[in-house]
Amino acid sequence: MVSSERPGTTVTTVHPAMGPASIESHYDEALAVPGVLAEIARDPDADGYVLACFGDPGLDAARELATGPVVGIAEAAMHTASFLGRGFSVVTTLGRTRGRAWELAARYGMSSFCRNVRACEIPVLELDIPGSQARDVITQECKRAVEDDEAEVLVLGCAGMADLCSYLSAEVGVPVVDGVAAATRTVESLVALGLSTSTRSEYAAPGAKQYVGALRGFTL
Amino acid sequence: MVSSERPGTTVTTVHPAMGPASIESHYDEALAVPGVLAEIARDPDADGYVLACFGDPGLDAARELATGPVVGIAEAAMHTASFLGRGFSVVTTLGRTRGRAWELAARYGMSSFCRNVRACEIPVLELDIPGSQARDVITQECKRAVEDDEAEVLVLGCAGMADLCSYLSAEVGVPVVDGVAAATRTVESLVALGLSTSTRSEYAAPGAKQYVGALRGFTL
Amino acid sequence: MVSSERPGTTVTTVHPAMGPASIESHYDEALAVPGVLAEIARDPDADGYVLACFGDPGLDAARELATGPVVGIAEAAMHTASFLGRGFSVVTTLGRTRGRAWELAARYGMSSFCRNVRACEIPVLELDIPGSQARDVITQECKRAVEDDEAEVLVLGCAGMADLCSYLSAEVGVPVVDGVAAATRTVESLVALGLSTSTRSEYAAPGAKQYVGALRGFTL
Amino acid sequence: MVSSERPGTTVTTVHPAMGPASIESHYDEALAVPGVLAEIARDPDADGYVLACFGDPGLDAARELATGPVVGIAEAAMHTASFLGRGFSVVTTLGRTRGRAWELAARYGMSSFCRNVRACEIPVLELDIPGSQARDVITQECKRAVEDDEAEVLVLGCAGMADLCSYLSAEVGVPVVDGVAAATRTVESLVALGLSTSTRSEYAAPGAKQYVGALRGFTL
Amino acid sequence: MVSSERPGTTVTTVHPAMGPASIESHYDEALAVPGVLAEIARDPDADGYVLACFGDPGLDAARELATGPVVGIAEAAMHTASFLGRGFSVVTTLGRTRGRAWELAARYGMSSFCRNVRACEIPVLELDIPGSQARDVITQECKRAVEDDEAEVLVLGCAGMADLCSYLSAEVGVPVVDGVAAATRTVESLVALGLSTSTRSEYAAPGAKQYVGALRGFTL
Amino acid sequence: MVSSERPGTTVTTVHPAMGPASIESHYDEALAVPGVLAEIARDPDADGYVLACFGDPGLDAARELATGPVVGIAEAAMHTASFLGRGFSVVTTLGRTRGRAWELAARYGMSSFCRNVRACEIPVLELDIPGSQARDVITQECKRAVEDDEAEVLVLGCAGMADLCSYLSAEVGVPVVDGVAAATRTVESLVALGLSTSTRSEYAAPGAKQYVGALRGFTL
Repeated sequence: MVSSERPGTTVTTVHPAMGPASIESHYDEALAVPGVLAEIARDPDADGYVLACFGDPGLDAARELATGPVVGIAEAAMHTASFLGRGFSVVTTLGRTRGRAWELAARYGMSSFCRNVRACEIPVLELDIPGSQARDVITQECKRAVEDDEAEVLVLGCAGMADLCSYLSAEVGVPVVDGVAAATRTVESLVALGLSTSTRSEYAAPGAKQYVGALRGFTL
Repeated sequence: MVSSERPGTTVTTVHPAMGPASIESHYDEALAVPGVLAEIARDPDADGYVLACFGDPGLDAARELATGPVVGIAEAAMHTASFLGRGFSVVTTLGRTRGRAWELAARYGMSSFCRNVRACEIPVLELDIPGSQARDVITQECKRAVEDDEAEVLVLGCAGMADLCSYLSAEVGVPVVDGVAAATRTVESLVALGLSTSTRSEYAAPGAKQYVGALRGFTL
Repeated sequence: MVSSERPGTTVTTVHPAMGPASIESHYDEALAVPGVLAEIARDPDADGYVLACFGDPGLDAARELATGPVVGIAEAAMHTASFLGRGFSVVTTLGRTRGRAWELAARYGMSSFCRNVRACEIPVLELDIPGSQARDVITQECKRAVEDDEAEVLVLGCAGMADLCSYLSAEVGVPVVDGVAAATRTVESLVALGLSTSTRSEYAAPGAKQYVGALRGFTL
Repeated sequence: MVSSERPGTTVTTVHPAMGPASIESHYDEALAVPGVLAEIARDPDADGYVLACFGDPGLDAARELATGPVVGIAEAAMHTASFLGRGFSVVTTLGRTRGRAWELAARYGMSSFCRNVRACEIPVLELDIPGSQARDVITQECKRAVEDDEAEVLVLGCAGMADLCSYLSAEVGVPVVDGVAAATRTVESLVALGLSTSTRSEYAAPGAKQYVGALRGFTL
Repeated sequence: MVSSERPGTTVTTVHPAMGPASIESHYDEALAVPGVLAEIARDPDADGYVLACFGDPGLDAARELATGPVVGIAEAAMHTASFLGRGFSVVTTLGRTRGRAWELAARYGMSSFCRNVRACEIPVLELDIPGSQARDVITQECKRAVEDDEAEVLVLGCAGMADLCSYLSAEVGVPVVDGVAAATRTVESLVALGLSTSTRSEYAAPGAKQYVGALRGFTL
Repeated sequence: MVSSERPGTTVTTVHPAMGPASIESHYDEALAVPGVLAEIARDPDADGYVLACFGDPGLDAARELATGPVVGIAEAAMHTASFLGRGFSVVTTLGRTRGRAWELAARYGMSSFCRNVRACEIPVLELDIPGSQARDVITQECKRAVEDDEAEVLVLGCAGMADLCSYLSAEVGVPVVDGVAAATRTVESLVALGLSTSTRSEYAAPGAKQYVGALRGFTL
């Protein structure tokens, strides 16, 4: 999934051992977070972490837990797009996730760059089905974004679209940002710069505390 | 904890069966959400739901899952305070939670009403310890909010402060809003008005999907 | 007009003895305010007050004058709608009042929730005329709001539309908020919570002062 | 009060025949509006109008009623100040009017230029009393604005301070804007440019309508 | 170009001796600035200065350099339009300059007044060509602004459109603001009020410094 | 000056052949832009460009002119800081440049992350003088930012401070971001991702046009 890393960087892709098969609602996203945190806890020596779902699930909690920097793919993609043009549109899977994308744009300071969030109404897992019309539908939506929103840059709103990135850019004629690659590069850069999450105040490591029930394994 | 309900309203207070003993970080909050959702799933016939932690954990996911309206105590308290004066300050427990309170103020449109978020640096569970200095410390911080922030209204930033509400209002001379009571009233009002979360688009019920691992019980 | 009140609440509806027959301009609204204030002064022992015009005329002045809480119907409706979905549209009477609705949305912090303000170009008093096409026109505009604005919730932009609330909700399939009912509930809640307008600084009672001419009766 | 007008401009200063002796609250301001509108109606042939109270009472209604342009002194002063530096502070009379000044700054788009609104706690009418300490107190507050707010420009927050303008500028060393003079110049310019309020949509003349009671004289 | 000045005002129009023939890109605009500054330096005794290009090139630098007030035509036009209606649209030349116009609206606090920036795709210098279709195209775009954007006021987005101002206003039926005239009036007013750029902090005169190369003439 | 580049990246540092010796005012900055553009024109085959002055002079024009991506050091530093904590403060040289830093924060969407811009009142060129007190003064200001602004991250507001980065981070205990290194990494990442400025609309290459006078060399 991540193929553009620089020499010397090893990217390990993991799928959380607990949670939903795909993330297409706030419910899914909320329940994906424990699995994300468990993976970070399991590999505490990684230099940095990418959250490879466009809702950036658990980003704040992950920053508290991890020693190395943590970057979400929506976060990285939106920031990256802001370096390339005055305005971008996000092209994503389901319409019900649009509110979350707008919320993240506001959270990251990217509201004024975000011209629109467009949905293709394609379920996440259909992106991988051979012979599906997903690519055509996404291409059409990207073209509408450029024509109707006057987007100068496009942001792919789902990790599963990553392998369409260069195809779409060639078809549509504007830069297309895949968050997975952008976030991986961003983490690489932060590590190379010797920078990680501030441990002062908000993102300091959480204190020792008892957890109960199915989540007792998260006790620190 | 909730004593002001109207005749005919029954409030049932539950403590989730999974998750942290208290919520004092993003990590705690993220891991509190599954327990919140499990409680809603366990009582699907309730008329409405209050999320009684000032971080409003899992609010969006709860709105998707529940049939009745769902209101968070930060949400209800901030909106209520906006009816009572030009500006309010939040007085909360730990400084590391201030970022979350500001984020919620922005999410709810209350940024321009929120003059400050002040921390007493008192852990949540210490609020219940007899003989602690918590009440005095909180009172001092409330007075500073009125003097230094020119707050005309105060918002208690933790469910555990609810029983100090009338004491503080008498001491400080401005309205003091307890989110637990405010949210309970708000849910009562929504139920009486026949209103609940829109099922169109973003907060429609999440689709059927497989969940795995420790969270497999959340499969819909 | 207000039919949903809880047992024990008495709602008295008054029409000011001075001012315009209906409110459809800034001129009308400005001249409605003295009548609103006179009614509050005439019934100083009420527990709380609802301003039942969607321009919320005189809200700040009323808060200074009244001892009990004062809530406007635009204010209550917009806040209520924000509990029910990510975005609402207002459907109102005349296009010339749209600017005021947007201004109130900004004043109350609701700009980011307000997707559109739509006008039916129906004069206020025509809403009560038997056989008028008002209901059909309003219904069409509500449907457009849901389709074109992607509104998940609707707000009725005129007190005179209150009795269409449940009809419209059934027709359009999203929650429809009537500000008169919402504001009445909100005031009830504030009274039950023991909360009223802060008397510190901005909304303190106005000082004694001479008034002259046709308004000399307002001398405090 | 207005002494700097250009040759050919006649400024007529009128004090409304109805309303409060001074404006120091929302209640005063709301009740000042009918008198303002009556004066405009009485002199419909004026080329333009200045609202000489820093709350800009009735500005929107006056724009509907008048044929010529209407400018408020807070509006003119804030816009003028934005031409002279990156940030200004307002120095006004009573602290309870600060909320209104901030609201106007937001309404006019001047929030990002407004560094602070400072109150001297001097009643409006005391400004004219010989031997009062008003001038010294105001001067001190202006100096604090420059030092503590890093204001590069000052705006006088009350028409009654107009004659202190050049004194304060000399004392404090930054431009000081008096809204009365600024608004008069702005109206002069608009008239010279042949510009007046748009009659399309929001500020079109209000329609014919019956008014009752003490305000029946406002019937159009 | 500027014909409406009051008696006693002399307006001298100069075209910089270095830089581009017209300004239609950021590149053009950036390279127009030295010429603007050179003209100001050449005439240091002028009472004030108007920057007669809608990108307001070099406004901040000019304010540092000049003793008298400096106003840009985009700045003056947008502020003036805000006195005349709730919302304006800008009608400009090339689409590629729209981003700059939006940026200036934000810089001046006029974002909430600016409903749209519309481009006619007419190069600046074509505006002066006899027999060109420029006037018709601009008129159509102005009509669309009024119909589709619900603009109550129009702002001409290029100094070269100044002589169309009264024609367009008559055709379209709303006030049309030409920035050149508006800025000239604004500077006149500032001079008459005895106001100029604050010399405190940001806009203080730049310190003595060596300049090299083709720009060595700018050494202070 | 740039020492952290990855293997395979060659960074060439150039000082423009025309313009000011240092940039400490809007005047300096405006006159630095032609030199920046000339350097880009002289090396059109570079993969990307960093503008190594914290005012990001000429960023928009450079994006039009260059084929490869262009990143400013203020832009890169602010975005990078937003990945590391909830809020950062900028520590810069002269107070008169603070307005520009705030303006850039707004331009880049970083206003809500920027807690303060603090000036040390040290001229840029003094940073390089052996034995100056610059380092101590900057360190004190950084400590105040952390204590008084509650900054969790610091941004160095001048390229000349780059070599203090690790010293300050060790002294103050929070991440310190040097924009030169951050921008270099960001450009490297963009190049590796195959991304450059969108050529659609705003940042398309400027059209052919005559330039005159001292800037005739910029004719395209």
